[in-house]
Amino acid sequence: MSQAYGFAAYAADKPFAPITFERREPGPYDVQIEILFCGVCHSDLHTARSEWEGTVYPVVPGHEIIGRVTAVGGQVSKFKVGQLAGVGCMVDSCRTCPSCQEGLEQYCEAPEGFIGTYNASDKHLGGVTYGGYSSSIVVDEAYTLTIPDNLDPAAAAPLLCAGITTYSPLRHWKVGPGQKVGIVGLGGLGHMGVKLAAAMGAHVVLFTTSPGKTEDAKRLGAKEVVVSKDAEQMAAHANSFDFILNTVAASHNLDAFLALLKRDGTMTLVGVPEHPHPSPTVANLIFKRRALAGSLIGGIAETQEMLDFCGQHGITSDIEKIAIEQIDTAYQRMTHSDVKYRFVIDMSTLSAQAS
Amino acid sequence: MSQAYGFAAYAADKPFAPITFERREPGPYDVQIEILFCGVCHSDLHTARSEWEGTVYPVVPGHEIIGRVTAVGGQVSKFKVGQLAGVGCMVDSCRTCPSCQEGLEQYCEAPEGFIGTYNASDKHLGGVTYGGYSSSIVVDEAYTLTIPDNLDPAAAAPLLCAGITTYSPLRHWKVGPGQKVGIVGLGGLGHMGVKLAAAMGAHVVLFTTSPGKTEDAKRLGAKEVVVSKDAEQMAAHANSFDFILNTVAASHNLDAFLALLKRDGTMTLVGVPEHPHPSPTVANLIFKRRALAGSLIGGIAETQEMLDFCGQHGITSDIEKIAIEQIDTAYQRMTHSDVKYRFVIDMSTLSAQAS
Repeated sequence: MSQAYGFAAYAADKPFAPITFERREPGPYDVQIEILFCGVCHSDLHTARSEWEGTVYPVVPGHEIIGRVTAVGGQVSKFKVGQLAGVGCMVDSCRTCPSCQEGLEQYCEAPEGFIGTYNASDKHLGGVTYGGYSSSIVVDEAYTLTIPDNLDPAAAAPLLCAGITTYSPLRHWKVGPGQKVGIVGLGGLGHMGVKLAAAMGAHVVLFTTSPGKTEDAKRLGAKEVVVSKDAEQMAAHANSFDFILNTVAASHNLDAFLALLKRDGTMTLVGVPEHPHPSPTVANLIFKRRALAGSLIGGIAETQEMLDFCGQHGITSDIEKIAIEQIDTAYQRMTHSDVKYRFVIDMSTLSAQAS
Repeated sequence: MSQAYGFAAYAADKPFAPITFERREPGPYDVQIEILFCGVCHSDLHTARSEWEGTVYPVVPGHEIIGRVTAVGGQVSKFKVGQLAGVGCMVDSCRTCPSCQEGLEQYCEAPEGFIGTYNASDKHLGGVTYGGYSSSIVVDEAYTLTIPDNLDPAAAAPLLCAGITTYSPLRHWKVGPGQKVGIVGLGGLGHMGVKLAAAMGAHVVLFTTSPGKTEDAKRLGAKEVVVSKDAEQMAAHANSFDFILNTVAASHNLDAFLALLKRDGTMTLVGVPEHPHPSPTVANLIFKRRALAGSLIGGIAETQEMLDFCGQHGITSDIEKIAIEQIDTAYQRMTHSDVKYRFVIDMSTLSAQAS
């Protein structure tokens, strides 16, 4: 085993503090990665603050990981020492259920589901898995991604969660040229949704409650920006969207957006609200055969496809780089949506802390 | 013009009473039909009692019409005098919008939507359209259906609404052999859903709150019956359904059924609740990429397809025949779900009233 160090939350209401822990020796199929950058996802915050059930403390969050390969097992074929590698939300899954067999490991049907990059049962060392707010990680190559060389590694890190979470539903619901596609919310997920849907050739309309985001949304690829609190602006788009990707987790009125879908259109939610959304009006679904759906990150093969797509189109996240000791401040700012559009921890700042 | 007579509601809180009114002379494309039978749909009751907006009194409900052709216009090609004919929920639509052009007239995109068989603007005579609780009707042959000879005309009448309302979503979501399909509710719609899904080759599971309906559901084609209030019975079916057709309009917990869908499964609602359903849990959608959708009756071509399918499989509705003067009692019984499974008015009883 090798020693790793990182930053952990030791309780829901305590600031982050250093932690030292073990990573396993790379097995025959394992890739050992020195972590260079790790994006900061809202799931990290929810887990660190125990806002969802089941946080095991201390918890080391982080599932938007990019680093450099430092060792590989004897059977590893995809990676060589020195190469860039990425790890997203999963480090393993059952591999035998229908969903895993179809490459949809995010929907793994094992009782515990897929093995999360943090706060999941670690079958190798016992205890729980530790994520990317740390110096290194060891992951089976089947759950490790290759990173296109032309992408800035820091700005590519958020692709591993924010990128795939938006790419997967856009692909699943066949977004492409000639389509009018809405993205609701311009945060970490939404700004990736705008970039990706635009790169797929769709006419992208960004919905926001903040008129001040208009210019930025257009810079990111939106053709139109609609202030969703303005009923008149919304009404002008009634029955016109092929697909809407709704990235807003805060409880809000879904009907306002469902009414903008064409017949047979779908609105897909990717955020779980703390308090339920008001119940959507059934007539809005029935009278246009519309659907309200959900989507969860993406499978490993699709994540690789997304990374390659981003490589081809030169797409990364808009980021604000932070040092590891700024993580508590970053969480505070995230709760006020004060980030454009993703914090990424520069993990070189960790060694300064550890020394 | 020709004189027709029927039964009308003159106010939300008054019993039905006779009415005499005009039907237009058949134009070149029109079919004149002597009505033999008319099914009694919940929409009739909601409209008669002004439980939805926009009832114009007096209203003559009825959109599950089967009768005999008594005259045809010079350009009519599908019908001959003496032949059986059917009329469902629509007597016209704009014919030019994308939905009409695609044969999905039920989603007609004209401002007023399709022209309903009753309580819609009558462009020929002015005023509103009058439905099937009457002696005769004149309808463009493009909105008139042919009825397979082997079906009992009285029992075939409910196919025009209850049949197509369940057939269309089963077809749209591609129900077929090898699939496990749930039907929620065993009323006028649900009992048709069971029969049709079974005839399409699916393994049909009927969900009901009434254990007493088990035997009947199996007679109609269900392979299994689940009492939806029994959490243990429900849990045994978690993540196992390809598709669920939910025919229950009363407000109820959708999550209990959404949790039974496989990954990528859809539950489709065909009833508009008076009070909203409790808001469905977003996590139930996201973690299995499930969808909640709606569906409205069906187009004219699909209604003909459904009737032909029913002819091939010998499918009709289970009905209780009533005389026209029993309509108020029938409505009362419907509000208590006391009908197996559809009332059908024998219109020969109308002439006794009119004489």
